[in-house]
Amino acid sequence: MNIVLLSGGSGKRLWPLSNNIRSKQFIKIFKNADGEYESMLQRVYNQIKRVDSSSSVTIATSKNQVSAIRNQLGDNVTISVEPSRRDTFPAIALLTAYLHDVLGISEDDVVIVSPVDPCVEDEYFAVFKKLELLAKEADNNLVLMGIEPTYPSEKYGYIIPENKEQVSKVSMFKEKPSADAAAKYIAGGALWNGGVFAYKLKYVLNKIKEFVSYTDYYDLYDKYELLPKISFDYAVVEKEPKLKVLRFNGSWKDLGTWNTLTETMDSNIIGEAYLNDKCVNVHVVNELDLPVLCMGLNNVVVAASPDGILVSEKEQSSYIKQFVDKFDTPVMYAEKSWGEFKIIDVAKESLTIKITLNKGHKMNYHMHTKRDEVWTIIQGIGRTVVDGIEQHVKPGDVIVIEAGCKHTIFAETDLKIIEVQLGKEISVHDKEKFELEC
Amino acid sequence: MNIVLLSGGSGKRLWPLSNNIRSKQFIKIFKNADGEYESMLQRVYNQIKRVDSSSSVTIATSKNQVSAIRNQLGDNVTISVEPSRRDTFPAIALLTAYLHDVLGISEDDVVIVSPVDPCVEDEYFAVFKKLELLAKEADNNLVLMGIEPTYPSEKYGYIIPENKEQVSKVSMFKEKPSADAAAKYIAGGALWNGGVFAYKLKYVLNKIKEFVSYTDYYDLYDKYELLPKISFDYAVVEKEPKLKVLRFNGSWKDLGTWNTLTETMDSNIIGEAYLNDKCVNVHVVNELDLPVLCMGLNNVVVAASPDGILVSEKEQSSYIKQFVDKFDTPVMYAEKSWGEFKIIDVAKESLTIKITLNKGHKMNYHMHTKRDEVWTIIQGIGRTVVDGIEQHVKPGDVIVIEAGCKHTIFAETDLKIIEVQLGKEISVHDKEKFELEC
Repeated sequence: MNIVLLSGGSGKRLWPLSNNIRSKQFIKIFKNADGEYESMLQRVYNQIKRVDSSSSVTIATSKNQVSAIRNQLGDNVTISVEPSRRDTFPAIALLTAYLHDVLGISEDDVVIVSPVDPCVEDEYFAVFKKLELLAKEADNNLVLMGIEPTYPSEKYGYIIPENKEQVSKVSMFKEKPSADAAAKYIAGGALWNGGVFAYKLKYVLNKIKEFVSYTDYYDLYDKYELLPKISFDYAVVEKEPKLKVLRFNGSWKDLGTWNTLTETMDSNIIGEAYLNDKCVNVHVVNELDLPVLCMGLNNVVVAASPDGILVSEKEQSSYIKQFVDKFDTPVMYAEKSWGEFKIIDVAKESLTIKITLNKGHKMNYHMHTKRDEVWTIIQGIGRTVVDGIEQHVKPGDVIVIEAGCKHTIFAETDLKIIEVQLGKEISVHDKEKFELEC
Repeated sequence: MNIVLLSGGSGKRLWPLSNNIRSKQFIKIFKNADGEYESMLQRVYNQIKRVDSSSSVTIATSKNQVSAIRNQLGDNVTISVEPSRRDTFPAIALLTAYLHDVLGISEDDVVIVSPVDPCVEDEYFAVFKKLELLAKEADNNLVLMGIEPTYPSEKYGYIIPENKEQVSKVSMFKEKPSADAAAKYIAGGALWNGGVFAYKLKYVLNKIKEFVSYTDYYDLYDKYELLPKISFDYAVVEKEPKLKVLRFNGSWKDLGTWNTLTETMDSNIIGEAYLNDKCVNVHVVNELDLPVLCMGLNNVVVAASPDGILVSEKEQSSYIKQFVDKFDTPVMYAEKSWGEFKIIDVAKESLTIKITLNKGHKMNYHMHTKRDEVWTIIQGIGRTVVDGIEQHVKPGDVIVIEAGCKHTIFAETDLKIIEVQLGKEISVHDKEKFELEC
């Protein structure tokens, strides 16, 4: 199967664990069979592979998520990157061209597109095979997956099928109806639209040409700004007569808020935390290196990360976005393809950062024009290159990198570095990359 | 007036803002007239000076509080340090000898002893003058201050006077009675014992000789272990026939728990925090450099420091001690006589610390045998001495101090340093002090 996972979202609803560069799909909250924590992205990837180990998985995303995806999945997936954020029609158009022109998948083959973050059982992915078979049929241009609702939610989109058979034509769509209306639709057989659909590549390749003429993926990438900013639902799905929906009646959860997310946690605590016996329905996710003690709380979620601390009654946590939008805080923690970084001190004209570089990885060879950096190696061994001069490094070694010096470091084992940045203007944009000469 | 403030307590009840070296009296939670935050210690000192600017204030404490007291009060007070923790009788014996033999106060003079942490108005200290006058009278060996109770507390000690006059003989003492019993005592005129009393120095100097023979303060200091481990109340107060109590009917609060402490806060928030409009009776004290967001909480205190995060329903917060006793965490933040330090990263065989050295101050000239240190100056200018070699330093300068090197730093302006400690055994005990040769 060719499966594409759409990985988007700035994830402010799960602040402080999600931020502008770490969306909710990267937060490690699920315990896997080995007792280790994994993210929604890792969980979904592993589920797909368990159901069909021969599936090829492509992730369609924006540039700022590539590092985190590589950090969590390594080179097991291909990544199709949008040049800019537009809407779902341009995104699906580009990834379809990518599958055809870069990965060489036949235009008669089927692709199944799914959000990256459903919280589901393996059976959900087993249904993808049925979607693939249905989409192969000449009479079906597009096949949707419809999820049998468990309650009349006002938050979701509804697919109204023509009948209650397992596979049905679609009579119409209803976006976020009132609870009353939703209950009526459900009684008539309506399904939640979980954003999963399947099509033959040529179907979308032809659709693209209705909007822009292009030769191949690379040409389309350059012309991305010419594609209209509209959703795939509006541009394609709702206009398609050869459209079917496949009914799925297994478990499905949308983990959009702390309230829904804590319901899926295997234990009440992730990280170091203590609850006294007067705590009822309290969940703590603590990514800081200090203990959290909760006493006498009822129905509360506590989430702590280098970005901040949330303490919220669970229902209230769904209103978090309006507050977090006001926080103009820098990103204090991020996963990169080569490891991770955490800002541990912010002062006037200096930033102190703990960098972890995974074994075998290296930073880009780069330079800053407006800041000096001091690296103190605290763990592991590696090699630095500063203005072409190579040096072996071990714990206790100090590398001073003045503004204007090109520099990089290779990790021969896992490496940990304390980096002190010094300068009047410290900015993530003050970075120029180079090819390494040696 | 000669006033002695007893500064003790490990302060675990106000974790995470108090710890083994920062007791509750050092936490900055009161807004002064200039809008700056001050601690109970600073507030009490300023109140005493406002009431009688000629008062001499001595603080009796243990060794581990000296740095914090100097940090907060500078050289405005004298400090009498116990060689070890025993009980209140030995402590009061030693400080009395200190006043007489070191400060040269006459044995006919009166001293007023008070805890360092009452939350009171200035009038409380104005009453000290009356205590002094009463204690001067030949017929009074010991004069207590009794606080008119506002409710029948089960937590306090009660002084039962012979009558309801402003000054009365004492008929007996009752420690932590039941609420019913307390109510009856109060109806009969009983008073709370706030731990304030006055006496002529010679009274206690003579008492000491009943337990140990000594020549002067220095001799008593050396013989401190020979003094019995008993309380001043038990050894002296309860046995004294020439005992009076002075009735005080002003406001008095004991800030022993988060619950009582938050009642005295001028605003609901200290530090960076946000409360949504569904929060009722929520207080936040945030000493971390990251925002706290509270939503939909009722009657909750949130306290955050480098030592940990407390989230507690207010009544429950009084049961904190049993949990905190179990935390075996190092002290992550401390005020020193020369400034302060904060541990910003803990890793295997390394610690990273942000040090602030106040202008004009210096560290001890010292050496570690089992760890190297790397200093990166991030703010201010100063001078380092490493193995006798002096060097001027400014932001960006890096000083590498190998194990076995003697080192210190002088702050010519306020200085901020990132210190990375590296070694297989990093311990606060690995420190040897030296006289500076240059």
